[in-house]
Amino acid sequence: MILINGKQTTTIEATDRGLHYGDGLFETIEVINEQPVFLTQHLMRLEAGCFVLKIPFPKKILLVSEVQQLCKDIAHGVIKIMLTRGTGGRGYRQPEVINSTRYIALHPYPHYPENYQQQGIKARFCDTRLGLNPLLSGLKHNNRLEQVLARSEWQDEVQEGLMLNINGDVIEGTMSNLFIIKNNIVYTPKLDQSGIKGIIRDIIIGLCHTHKISVQVIDMNVDFVRTADELFVTNSVIGLWPITKLQDKSYPIGEQTTSLIKYFNQFKQQGIEG
Amino acid sequence: MILINGKQTTTIEATDRGLHYGDGLFETIEVINEQPVFLTQHLMRLEAGCFVLKIPFPKKILLVSEVQQLCKDIAHGVIKIMLTRGTGGRGYRQPEVINSTRYIALHPYPHYPENYQQQGIKARFCDTRLGLNPLLSGLKHNNRLEQVLARSEWQDEVQEGLMLNINGDVIEGTMSNLFIIKNNIVYTPKLDQSGIKGIIRDIIIGLCHTHKISVQVIDMNVDFVRTADELFVTNSVIGLWPITKLQDKSYPIGEQTTSLIKYFNQFKQQGIEG
Repeated sequence: MILINGKQTTTIEATDRGLHYGDGLFETIEVINEQPVFLTQHLMRLEAGCFVLKIPFPKKILLVSEVQQLCKDIAHGVIKIMLTRGTGGRGYRQPEVINSTRYIALHPYPHYPENYQQQGIKARFCDTRLGLNPLLSGLKHNNRLEQVLARSEWQDEVQEGLMLNINGDVIEGTMSNLFIIKNNIVYTPKLDQSGIKGIIRDIIIGLCHTHKISVQVIDMNVDFVRTADELFVTNSVIGLWPITKLQDKSYPIGEQTTSLIKYFNQFKQQGIEG
Repeated sequence: MILINGKQTTTIEATDRGLHYGDGLFETIEVINEQPVFLTQHLMRLEAGCFVLKIPFPKKILLVSEVQQLCKDIAHGVIKIMLTRGTGGRGYRQPEVINSTRYIALHPYPHYPENYQQQGIKARFCDTRLGLNPLLSGLKHNNRLEQVLARSEWQDEVQEGLMLNINGDVIEGTMSNLFIIKNNIVYTPKLDQSGIKGIIRDIIIGLCHTHKISVQVIDMNVDFVRTADELFVTNSVIGLWPITKLQDKSYPIGEQTTSLIKYFNQFKQQGIEG
């Protein structure tokens, strides 16, 4: 079901700037027992992104009530919130008065095998390289051709592909953020040139601080990742998936990853119970 | 008027991948006396872009007939053709069978003063920097947030803004390609890291060859551009506009620019009559 500006529909104005220029931002949120998980964090990120792109952020109470409307009676699902700069303007020039488009959709929870969190996934390195864009990096905006091309490199042989940028830095998965563990230190890539700053990434970094686990945000190359002791990826729908095979090399689900899964699931449970 | 997949409409499927990921390409074409100008070149570029992005290119005869349908009785206008990867797939993953969406719209010709070509325009340097993306550069794809942000830097004080990339190379205007002339040599920026390869840019380079004018595609910095003898920008709607003021400095519409305007207008006229 899709609500656009509060009305149930299956179509959107053909002149919407989201369609023409990817002129928008989005959030993907897990729904458990009618509860949009980490909604506060998602709305904060969305508002911060709107500030950078100068897209008017709607009244938060309106977004929340529309999200709740779609979550009603949903045991497990996914909510996508998208905000675009709406219609109008001439070419790239935006209209003087911007009425942003609110798109909120409910999707079924994707059928990932339950055991990905317990048993881990296979991953590969993608050939598609991310560009460098300090202005837009970190934001979950609608300009996502790089991810689409990277995801087209494989079908079901692996569950995630890791992407490098054109400098050779490992940045993220096509749909997830990357963490690696080496000598009991947790590392995750810097995202100031490329990549999306995920909500779960922030939460994992916070949990490391809380639990006195050393965590560092750094530039890392392929060799650094390959020689990790443990690896995992995160996003708002999958939570945390250990990588047990990357290309031809196997990795254990070690002590640190196991602890972080426990801490994360506890934190998430607290969030759901409110 | 808008045709989507051949049907007149004002809306598009809300699940279209063009909306969600900017997963598409477009062309903007001038219409004069029912004729879409340089249609062959535009369709060739669109097809080449589809090849890179792996978007199925529709039957050319279908696109041409729909464009002609919209051009009927139009003395002067603009046609926008957009192709997206259509609907479907899960997240970034594309569906196994891709049915691309054909979007063709007719717009009124924008009301630019006639004298921009004769008397020149004012331009500025934008603060918004283009990222580096060798994979996508050159293509007229729908990931256009950089241009939207750059165009939001001014209202009507100037007619175009020139953009640098993060390396400090001058690349293009927000909606145009840039040419500068120095000591009778015509220069235009390399577009292998950033920027869009415009149809008119190609035609101008070709006209330089035809008329034995020395033309070079190079990396250029702000100083090189500032110290030009003459400057002009090009696109499919404006044709060729000389820049007579860039920031605080004035430039003449010199002999080379005047010749190229004449050659271009002749070439365009032949195309329309041909």
